[in-house]
Amino acid sequence: MLTPQVRASVLVEALPYIRRFHGRTIVLKYGGHAMLNEELKTAVLTDVVLMHYVGIRPVIVHGGGPEITAMLRRLGIPSRFVNGLRITDRETMEVVEMVLVGRLNKDIVARINRLGGRAVGLSGKDANLLEARKLSSGGEQEPDLGFVGEVAAVNPAVVKTLINEGYIPVVAPVGGGSDGETYNINADHVAGRLAAALGADKLLLLTDVPGILAQPDDPGSLLSTVRSGEIPALIAAGKVRGGMIPKVECCLVALERGVGSAHILDGRVPHAVLLELFADHGIGTMVVP
Amino acid sequence: MLTPQVRASVLVEALPYIRRFHGRTIVLKYGGHAMLNEELKTAVLTDVVLMHYVGIRPVIVHGGGPEITAMLRRLGIPSRFVNGLRITDRETMEVVEMVLVGRLNKDIVARINRLGGRAVGLSGKDANLLEARKLSSGGEQEPDLGFVGEVAAVNPAVVKTLINEGYIPVVAPVGGGSDGETYNINADHVAGRLAAALGADKLLLLTDVPGILAQPDDPGSLLSTVRSGEIPALIAAGKVRGGMIPKVECCLVALERGVGSAHILDGRVPHAVLLELFADHGIGTMVVP
Amino acid sequence: MLTPQVRASVLVEALPYIRRFHGRTIVLKYGGHAMLNEELKTAVLTDVVLMHYVGIRPVIVHGGGPEITAMLRRLGIPSRFVNGLRITDRETMEVVEMVLVGRLNKDIVARINRLGGRAVGLSGKDANLLEARKLSSGGEQEPDLGFVGEVAAVNPAVVKTLINEGYIPVVAPVGGGSDGETYNINADHVAGRLAAALGADKLLLLTDVPGILAQPDDPGSLLSTVRSGEIPALIAAGKVRGGMIPKVECCLVALERGVGSAHILDGRVPHAVLLELFADHGIGTMVVP
Amino acid sequence: MLTPQVRASVLVEALPYIRRFHGRTIVLKYGGHAMLNEELKTAVLTDVVLMHYVGIRPVIVHGGGPEITAMLRRLGIPSRFVNGLRITDRETMEVVEMVLVGRLNKDIVARINRLGGRAVGLSGKDANLLEARKLSSGGEQEPDLGFVGEVAAVNPAVVKTLINEGYIPVVAPVGGGSDGETYNINADHVAGRLAAALGADKLLLLTDVPGILAQPDDPGSLLSTVRSGEIPALIAAGKVRGGMIPKVECCLVALERGVGSAHILDGRVPHAVLLELFADHGIGTMVVP
Amino acid sequence: MLTPQVRASVLVEALPYIRRFHGRTIVLKYGGHAMLNEELKTAVLTDVVLMHYVGIRPVIVHGGGPEITAMLRRLGIPSRFVNGLRITDRETMEVVEMVLVGRLNKDIVARINRLGGRAVGLSGKDANLLEARKLSSGGEQEPDLGFVGEVAAVNPAVVKTLINEGYIPVVAPVGGGSDGETYNINADHVAGRLAAALGADKLLLLTDVPGILAQPDDPGSLLSTVRSGEIPALIAAGKVRGGMIPKVECCLVALERGVGSAHILDGRVPHAVLLELFADHGIGTMVVP
Amino acid sequence: MLTPQVRASVLVEALPYIRRFHGRTIVLKYGGHAMLNEELKTAVLTDVVLMHYVGIRPVIVHGGGPEITAMLRRLGIPSRFVNGLRITDRETMEVVEMVLVGRLNKDIVARINRLGGRAVGLSGKDANLLEARKLSSGGEQEPDLGFVGEVAAVNPAVVKTLINEGYIPVVAPVGGGSDGETYNINADHVAGRLAAALGADKLLLLTDVPGILAQPDDPGSLLSTVRSGEIPALIAAGKVRGGMIPKVECCLVALERGVGSAHILDGRVPHAVLLELFADHGIGTMVVP
Repeated sequence: MLTPQVRASVLVEALPYIRRFHGRTIVLKYGGHAMLNEELKTAVLTDVVLMHYVGIRPVIVHGGGPEITAMLRRLGIPSRFVNGLRITDRETMEVVEMVLVGRLNKDIVARINRLGGRAVGLSGKDANLLEARKLSSGGEQEPDLGFVGEVAAVNPAVVKTLINEGYIPVVAPVGGGSDGETYNINADHVAGRLAAALGADKLLLLTDVPGILAQPDDPGSLLSTVRSGEIPALIAAGKVRGGMIPKVECCLVALERGVGSAHILDGRVPHAVLLELFADHGIGTMVVP
Repeated sequence: MLTPQVRASVLVEALPYIRRFHGRTIVLKYGGHAMLNEELKTAVLTDVVLMHYVGIRPVIVHGGGPEITAMLRRLGIPSRFVNGLRITDRETMEVVEMVLVGRLNKDIVARINRLGGRAVGLSGKDANLLEARKLSSGGEQEPDLGFVGEVAAVNPAVVKTLINEGYIPVVAPVGGGSDGETYNINADHVAGRLAAALGADKLLLLTDVPGILAQPDDPGSLLSTVRSGEIPALIAAGKVRGGMIPKVECCLVALERGVGSAHILDGRVPHAVLLELFADHGIGTMVVP
Repeated sequence: MLTPQVRASVLVEALPYIRRFHGRTIVLKYGGHAMLNEELKTAVLTDVVLMHYVGIRPVIVHGGGPEITAMLRRLGIPSRFVNGLRITDRETMEVVEMVLVGRLNKDIVARINRLGGRAVGLSGKDANLLEARKLSSGGEQEPDLGFVGEVAAVNPAVVKTLINEGYIPVVAPVGGGSDGETYNINADHVAGRLAAALGADKLLLLTDVPGILAQPDDPGSLLSTVRSGEIPALIAAGKVRGGMIPKVECCLVALERGVGSAHILDGRVPHAVLLELFADHGIGTMVVP
Repeated sequence: MLTPQVRASVLVEALPYIRRFHGRTIVLKYGGHAMLNEELKTAVLTDVVLMHYVGIRPVIVHGGGPEITAMLRRLGIPSRFVNGLRITDRETMEVVEMVLVGRLNKDIVARINRLGGRAVGLSGKDANLLEARKLSSGGEQEPDLGFVGEVAAVNPAVVKTLINEGYIPVVAPVGGGSDGETYNINADHVAGRLAAALGADKLLLLTDVPGILAQPDDPGSLLSTVRSGEIPALIAAGKVRGGMIPKVECCLVALERGVGSAHILDGRVPHAVLLELFADHGIGTMVVP
Repeated sequence: MLTPQVRASVLVEALPYIRRFHGRTIVLKYGGHAMLNEELKTAVLTDVVLMHYVGIRPVIVHGGGPEITAMLRRLGIPSRFVNGLRITDRETMEVVEMVLVGRLNKDIVARINRLGGRAVGLSGKDANLLEARKLSSGGEQEPDLGFVGEVAAVNPAVVKTLINEGYIPVVAPVGGGSDGETYNINADHVAGRLAAALGADKLLLLTDVPGILAQPDDPGSLLSTVRSGEIPALIAAGKVRGGMIPKVECCLVALERGVGSAHILDGRVPHAVLLELFADHGIGTMVVP
Repeated sequence: MLTPQVRASVLVEALPYIRRFHGRTIVLKYGGHAMLNEELKTAVLTDVVLMHYVGIRPVIVHGGGPEITAMLRRLGIPSRFVNGLRITDRETMEVVEMVLVGRLNKDIVARINRLGGRAVGLSGKDANLLEARKLSSGGEQEPDLGFVGEVAAVNPAVVKTLINEGYIPVVAPVGGGSDGETYNINADHVAGRLAAALGADKLLLLTDVPGILAQPDDPGSLLSTVRSGEIPALIAAGKVRGGMIPKVECCLVALERGVGSAHILDGRVPHAVLLELFADHGIGTMVVP
């Protein structure tokens, strides 16, 4: 049990960090375990509300995952994956959109509002926020992925309007194509592009790993800060590998387009966002230009 | 084939109506057949976009219906109705929300945007737009309806923000309760309360009937204008009956709270909205205070 | 007699054009027959009011003509012309200004206001809108034209203020010179320069001819679109000749200074403005850069 | 020849008056001799420009007079007067409007602009500034006055817009009636009603008399300040008589509608406006509520 | 040594309080021991900066005290007190003003700025913030106190301007009288009146006692909340006595004029402000209406 | 005794100058005799208030001088000077700050407010307006000057905020260093740098000499206008010498950074500011780029 004096001193020690991020926009990719565990959910979204109240302007992009698979299973629609990407036919896409936009997005919105924030959920279709296009598959031999898309353009005006009025935008990674179709887009990719379009100060990716490790199997070998120029060597050396590669690429895209820094955080740690922002040495890996 | 001169004269004849509604907010309840037929969908939403471009500020509240039932059936969830209201357990409510918010709402948004408008979809959970509470059932004998709600309060700030920035808000009739539960609310009721909260000039209810008829079975006996004070006698005489009664009650609620007029329109007629607004004698029944 | 459904479809077909010009500034030179015939007057000014209500920002520059000559005759002041330009001594200039500013301008203003617009009449002297200078005559042999001027500079601030507040500015082509004298300026010229100073999207010149003709005597040979680069050849070939030459030159001046397109329309056709704006192939000649 | 030090002290002594009227709106009826003599014209309009530069917001309403009669004579239109009011048939009204709006108004505007102000001339038709109605004649025996009107309503929005942007509005006393006719309105009456509609601080009436005199034939008996309640007795005693009565009535109307004070000034005295404003004891009669 | 997780949880627990005071104005009377001890100074002013960064709008009113006495002593000016009030002749007043405004105020300003805030120091003379008048002494027998004043009026415009621009105003309790003299005013009194004029949410008085005690000699008997209606009985019972009486009276004045609550805090406790604001049971006495 | 007519004509003759400086920012260094003589004080500050009311935006930077020396003497602190600069140890600096900020600054503020302006006093510490650094002494042999500083940077935001709200900022030449120390800065230097940072139109330096003289001992040889390029020759020729050199250098610094002109005025002449501004040939020397 902490004394009030100790509590006060903790707040005071947070002041330099609060000051540093005051008025800044921070885009948070919310996904993985942090979306599954009830306690983690509350911790992450409380961090978001706290960010808002200390003058930071948070924007959330969320993923989907197990809920989509569960609903597809209930509807008897088989799930097939190629290189970790779900083959998404039209029927699947309809389910993906319903679950992402109609269920997960609104659950996040309602939770933030119960915690005292004022969240507004958006799909990439709202005000054409995300213009999508079909993700080109790797080659002729690759099977067609269907309605798996990438970001063709971002129209961030509606997000800026909402931020300026004090709302917390929560974005589902679904976009409409110029072909009239709906596409599912990787949430990390959306977060990176949205951070760039907003001129965000930071991109935070909540993952299920501690960050980039000097020794991939040794959690104690976390690299606290990595320069973007060091990434190719880390990939070549196999230290960044597998599912971490696309995440790191999203970070690089955001940095190239002017985002100040990109952070890979362990979403399994409660309050990972606060721990990263409000300390000199955060808990994840910060990638800087 | 009309000559250009005839086309010009039609535009000119619309001018007095355009002038009258310039800058006014009009809430449109969109539902019934007009949501099912592809041609009608395009006609209604084109009317909405046209309203926007001639200086009217439209807000849409949409219903659900057949798509919800179809999805419930696919998931093997039985649908039961009492007095026309679906008994909505938690599992049903989840499907209702997914279909309304994740599918129908975004379909409307995307269609408006393709027609040149800038729509943003909202659930009643967004920015706490609609605070819901459980609809009290008629009596002890009545079965519990589950998560069927009514509007406890409207917080229209986010809708006003979007309107002022030139967006067309599209609202799904789902709200969160102070109990943390999600409620399905009748879309007519939402439209009436939202019109009141926005200080709207008009409430338009798209239905599947011509309007209020002097002889319920004679479509030629349409009452073009009805004063709100005449409604009780019309109900007593059985001329307003069945499903028309709750619709008329929504109109009365809106009028009591300051909405200028409420219109019951036949959504099966293409461009029913334009036909009602841009003519001295519209096609439906206008209820005035 | 058109059915309401046909009327609705005409409005709907106008939507793409309304959308295209929404928020744009369009300068209309109003003169010729369209200022003489009562029915044409109403048609032109109704078009202007309709433009305003569908979100276009119209600015009118009007000419004078027969009313000036009639007043001069009543006052026993002889009218002499050189190359189509009235020799304007001080006494004549006083009458020109009185008729243009005190009579024709206010008649247009009052008509627009009766049609539901909010017009404000301006002379070039108001807020120094038009700084004039004496038009240099062609040579030593030419007689002095007196107070016939050209635009030395445009100060469009007052017009912008009025547009932004939702007024329709109506400008009489009279300007003050730095010599303290008053000058009569050609209204086409004023319209072109004002369009340029406002960064207008379009300049519309209402004339008494169908437009530029491939065969000057064959109204059926109308050139619907002409590139500015083609004009010299058209003049050399005698296809643009006589009074059309200065009009085309006004178009070129406007295009060079950034106006999007300049249109030569037949003001004898009712609703020529609507017919030009709200159709893919208008009724006149559009000159584009 | 004054020394610079004396000049500085004069400016300094004006400070308390400048401070008092800073940001206030003052409506000046400009007419009589001050519109005829070249030197007086420059003096009055310089006063107006100076008012503007020291932070006062002047609005001018001007009269007509000799120039109208001269033009009517040139056109061979006979002038007839009843009780000092010109019988104004339609032909006469056209001339009145042309001279007032097209000539006198623009002459004032141009002079102010040459003195460094930014004036914009307005007729009562502009933006429906003055809604007129036929002045009811005194009785059945009275001849019809034709298009002599009075103010039915003032719509001061355009004047406020111009003032707020730093322009000096100059208003000609002509208004449109709901019958589509044009009416000539007494300029004192327009000035009083406009002052009231603008919530002006002061109404200044430039006349050709020193003010209200205790002894009507003794200019030395000027009443410097009169309370509105004293006016009836002054009229009863014949001290306010003839043409002064309607002027005083305009003052009373303005005071009743909230104008702070109304001043009757001698426009034959150069800089009468400055002399009245920038001294404890002005040169005319101030009527206070 | 606290773990990062514990630190995060402290921040999270502060969220409800941050939320509650977001956007609110809080006036802090800063004086007593908290102005003498270097560590306490840093603690108080850090609290102020933290308040600013979490969205609260703090305004500081500071006292003087020992520094004034020291300077008077150095200048050989004797200090005399009556009922705890310094007899303040003109020479003394000059020293008081110099020390308060030129030294203490700027020291506070510079400290806040070094901690990352943006403070602007004000005397009551700046923009006539505090209009003072001579404090009427208790009776004829009482010696004249000289330039000891009270607040005659507050003109809070300059404080509001600075708050709205994100500055932290720091006010020295000196005001000018309509007699041209300078008055020293009790800082508690200034804080109460300024809180009222600003419509502040809270008034915080930093003192050298724990708050109001049920047993004046038992610090453990602190009354955490007192209703304003209970104060007279507490005074009558001798539980509020001595120097606490005027402080409590300042609280009552503020509450009567609409301030939400007034707090008497022990400035000897580091971070007393945070401890009072960011906990359900603060450390001092809260007086509520 | 001047007649009212003469007074009016003086005001009218000032109009061209008022017009020229309308809306411009003018920085006035206030010091020397003009701060000592009661009549001169009133004259200078009346000029400032008058400037404000005729639409100029004045900013004052004041010096100190005799009052500082007197207070140091009273406190028994010896004053030592090197090259006209006071050797300023910490104890001296405390007194300098108290007198400048707590006494002289507030005296100026209170006087302006009594004259009808709305002044706000600022020290360079307020909102970090002036960032100071230690003035580097001339060389190793030179004694250390202590806390004599120069301007390292200007943060003019708070001055701009106050000007835009209609306040007259009065700045004391004291600044905080990044070392946490307080520095006394030459007021001419502060005025020049502040004028540059504000993009001022003019810098006015009130001195105790007539201006730059062609013959240093002949007041009749005043140079009314000097180009900045001529200054080096004037220094070389000994015509600008002694204490005039640093003043002229402040002028050059301001001109180089974009100030329109810099004026050296004789503050011993009452209303020197008005005499310089409101006449073609002022009373001092104007340095132009």
